[in-house]
Amino acid sequence: MSERVNVYEVAPRDGLQNESTVVETDDKVAFIERLVASGYRDVEISSFVRPRWVPQLADASEVVARTAHLRDENDVTFWALVPNRRGLDRAVESGLGAVATFLSASETHNKKNINRTVRESLAAQSEVIASAREEGMRVRAYISCVFGCPYEGHVDPDRAVDIAQALLSAGAEQISLGDTTGMGNPAQVADIIGRFKAAGVDLGRLALHMHDTRGTALANVLAGLQSGVRCFDASIAGLGGCPYAPGASGNLASEDLIYMLQEMGYDTGLDLESAAQAGDFIEDVLGRELPGRYHLYHRGAAGSAGSASTASTAGTGRARNSARG
Amino acid sequence: MSERVNVYEVAPRDGLQNESTVVETDDKVAFIERLVASGYRDVEISSFVRPRWVPQLADASEVVARTAHLRDENDVTFWALVPNRRGLDRAVESGLGAVATFLSASETHNKKNINRTVRESLAAQSEVIASAREEGMRVRAYISCVFGCPYEGHVDPDRAVDIAQALLSAGAEQISLGDTTGMGNPAQVADIIGRFKAAGVDLGRLALHMHDTRGTALANVLAGLQSGVRCFDASIAGLGGCPYAPGASGNLASEDLIYMLQEMGYDTGLDLESAAQAGDFIEDVLGRELPGRYHLYHRGAAGSAGSASTASTAGTGRARNSARG
Repeated sequence: MSERVNVYEVAPRDGLQNESTVVETDDKVAFIERLVASGYRDVEISSFVRPRWVPQLADASEVVARTAHLRDENDVTFWALVPNRRGLDRAVESGLGAVATFLSASETHNKKNINRTVRESLAAQSEVIASAREEGMRVRAYISCVFGCPYEGHVDPDRAVDIAQALLSAGAEQISLGDTTGMGNPAQVADIIGRFKAAGVDLGRLALHMHDTRGTALANVLAGLQSGVRCFDASIAGLGGCPYAPGASGNLASEDLIYMLQEMGYDTGLDLESAAQAGDFIEDVLGRELPGRYHLYHRGAAGSAGSASTASTAGTGRARNSARG
Repeated sequence: MSERVNVYEVAPRDGLQNESTVVETDDKVAFIERLVASGYRDVEISSFVRPRWVPQLADASEVVARTAHLRDENDVTFWALVPNRRGLDRAVESGLGAVATFLSASETHNKKNINRTVRESLAAQSEVIASAREEGMRVRAYISCVFGCPYEGHVDPDRAVDIAQALLSAGAEQISLGDTTGMGNPAQVADIIGRFKAAGVDLGRLALHMHDTRGTALANVLAGLQSGVRCFDASIAGLGGCPYAPGASGNLASEDLIYMLQEMGYDTGLDLESAAQAGDFIEDVLGRELPGRYHLYHRGAAGSAGSASTASTAGTGRARNSARG
């Protein structure tokens, strides 16, 4: 039996919220169906933030309602982001059973994004988490800027440990440590996970959410894997780019992560080809090229296939390309 | 004193040979000047294959001649690929002091690309290497398909060890192990480097040349680094894509590698900002978007800068992007 590693899929929420295109609810539902068919156990499908803030996800309640049968028929949990009590109330009303909260390990980043001190956010979220638990919901908590802050640069790594312990005590079952700026490096990942271990945190409670802004996301995942983390957030085809830099990458692409984990012998429970096809689907919906490496390889291989199988054509192309060294 | 890790730059050869555009010699020289100014100690500047095979590099002798002053004035070695005796003769005539040979660990791949068995290639190359050494030249040898073959799939990892030992015995000073297909994974890298160790090969003689086709190149480098390898091949801005899949990635992007190594505390001797600017330069010359992650981040940050500094603007954009979790 190979060891299980979980991929937590964020594309329908973290990916689509950053798109300038507002995707039709029908297409979101079809996308989520494809993700479930690929074998995902955890998909973050929307966000109950104010529709005015994120019009892309204003149909959260409808997406939850129209995908409810998928939850019932499959071993999958659908999650949605909730910023506050009002968001939680909407999530409860929608019938969803799992929510995710968020705050930042950086004081300045938290202040600018949530307009609260970290201490204030923690107090407010502890109440939201307690309420969610009373409703019988599962709760995940994101901590952003764990590996660096766009305003402060370096962030004290022990802050994430302290905040995580408070959130776990409040009732969160998992903490996702975010490299919001994509500044992290593998040595830093090993150091920070080591601090969680030293503080007695069960590593089974942790996930890593690494951004690929500088190409380091998968190397950072490897360091997390080596340190004992067994859950990683990723987004199909690298969906969730950064609006200020067309073509630049934000989220780690799920296909790249799945490929690496499976080749290393881990059991992800996922079908890579099916996941890659979900990436092709959402790319067609959005009408713009998505940046994931495996995604581009997969699309290119299919595009050049002709009558041959895609795999062998891809191989031939690659071989020709490298023919002179 | 931090530990030294060497980045061997392949963009002027491995990158440009795969471009449909033939770059002017003037621009190649200007590009190589920028690379040298970034602090590189090893740059592969061209290839002495038949011009009919690779018209993009038909000006190899001129590039060598016009960059000779850079070699004299800096602590840098310029390398060129030579496929055979004729190529070596041209390299000698050009005045270059360092050459690279190539063959494949896969019998089928070698046969299709060089039209020889691996044994035949090894015999021919041993003679070329010996001749080069007699001329006082430095010799590097590439072994491709070490981590997988487009035709055979799995490749016996011990073949690379045997071939490398033969090439070292013939006089090569360094062996670059190529993941030609981008199929490699970190566990495999650790396994293969472990076999070299077990065979008594000095790891200082090895380099890794990882392709990013499936996004795994930097994670594979990390595994190599952890196994004791201290030289990695990379290409500025990820230059050297795969012609069958526009946008798909071939070579590992140098900026991503440099960023990771420096953040981990290794001494690369390189100036990342200067290397990134070399990437912007060659992108402008080629007139197409290059795929490197850090490159795209760097370009996007500069593009959105306005009157603010690029770094703080990039930070703000990133922060806004992640404002809702």
